[in-house]
Amino acid sequence: MLSYDLSIALLHEGMVSRDGSIVTTSLTMIDVHDIARSAATYGVSTVYIVHPSPHLRSLARTLTTHWISGYGSTYNPNRREALGGVKVVASFDEMVLDLADRSSGRAPRLLATSAKGGGDRMTFGQAFSMMNNEEIPYVLMLGTGHGMSDPLLARADYFLEPINGPTPYNHLSVRSACAIMLDRLYQSRTEV
Amino acid sequence: MLSYDLSIALLHEGMVSRDGSIVTTSLTMIDVHDIARSAATYGVSTVYIVHPSPHLRSLARTLTTHWISGYGSTYNPNRREALGGVKVVASFDEMVLDLADRSSGRAPRLLATSAKGGGDRMTFGQAFSMMNNEEIPYVLMLGTGHGMSDPLLARADYFLEPINGPTPYNHLSVRSACAIMLDRLYQSRTEV
Repeated sequence: MLSYDLSIALLHEGMVSRDGSIVTTSLTMIDVHDIARSAATYGVSTVYIVHPSPHLRSLARTLTTHWISGYGSTYNPNRREALGGVKVVASFDEMVLDLADRSSGRAPRLLATSAKGGGDRMTFGQAFSMMNNEEIPYVLMLGTGHGMSDPLLARADYFLEPINGPTPYNHLSVRSACAIMLDRLYQSRTEV
Repeated sequence: MLSYDLSIALLHEGMVSRDGSIVTTSLTMIDVHDIARSAATYGVSTVYIVHPSPHLRSLARTLTTHWISGYGSTYNPNRREALGGVKVVASFDEMVLDLADRSSGRAPRLLATSAKGGGDRMTFGQAFSMMNNEEIPYVLMLGTGHGMSDPLLARADYFLEPINGPTPYNHLSVRSACAIMLDRLYQSRTEV
């Protein structure tokens, strides 16, 4: 029985840049679309688009409104269904409070992935088993740019194993990585 | 031991449109990027971008050249590595001939997926096992628009099981679907 309460946070503030400094990345509209569609496929509760810029949050809301109640909602109802699960917020803390609000005050538990090695990593099977056994909201943290900075990673309660293929290349797009992580969690249900 | 010879074909001609007619869809640059990055991660031999329009093929070559040998190659070498595996061709037949050429004349075997039910579907584990045991090139056919038309699907030698999550929603982007399929094939190696 699949009964997790999993949300996704697409994060832009506190990311590592190409030169190693900590930056805020831009919001990319195709991320919103692709991640919302993957989330709808795998039964994700809410996709939080987290961005500190009011202008980019406004742009994200224009996009979602177009598909949820504007012309796009009749042109492509499938997109309405997917984007209906998107929530645009200003900060990580706003997301945590929003999730706690709708869970009788229970703080969500935060799962991160990082390409960095070491530490206690959960397998996807362990994560699924944990999520499926408790009535607690979980959040999958997704970084952009060159990944989440250490202060942001330090907020995570759990670290998932990295997604490795048979090659040393590990530069999946966040859209692809999200899809694979949701599928691996779902496929792990048979191991529980 | 992982030793498959798997290529990807991103197809645009012979697709089903929203109203059910057969159309040629436009080439989308983000598809090239994301699929090339997933392909590099999972050891895919070649990503064939198949499009009948010489203008769109030229645009695709401008993109890949920028990243392989232009300014992008020094700005982001990871992208060079991924896009180096992309080949732009005009037709499905041109792709089949190109693959046969570099395989001592052996015709590639074609794998398709379709959201339509029924028929003989292979699991990802069966497909991996088959690919891993033979020295034959395989091609994963990826449709765009509202999916491949029947004449195109009829060219496939094998049908993979559809990607289903726990919900009835089945409208993943082709970028996400490709990432999940490559990961499922790779994860299946433990079942062999």
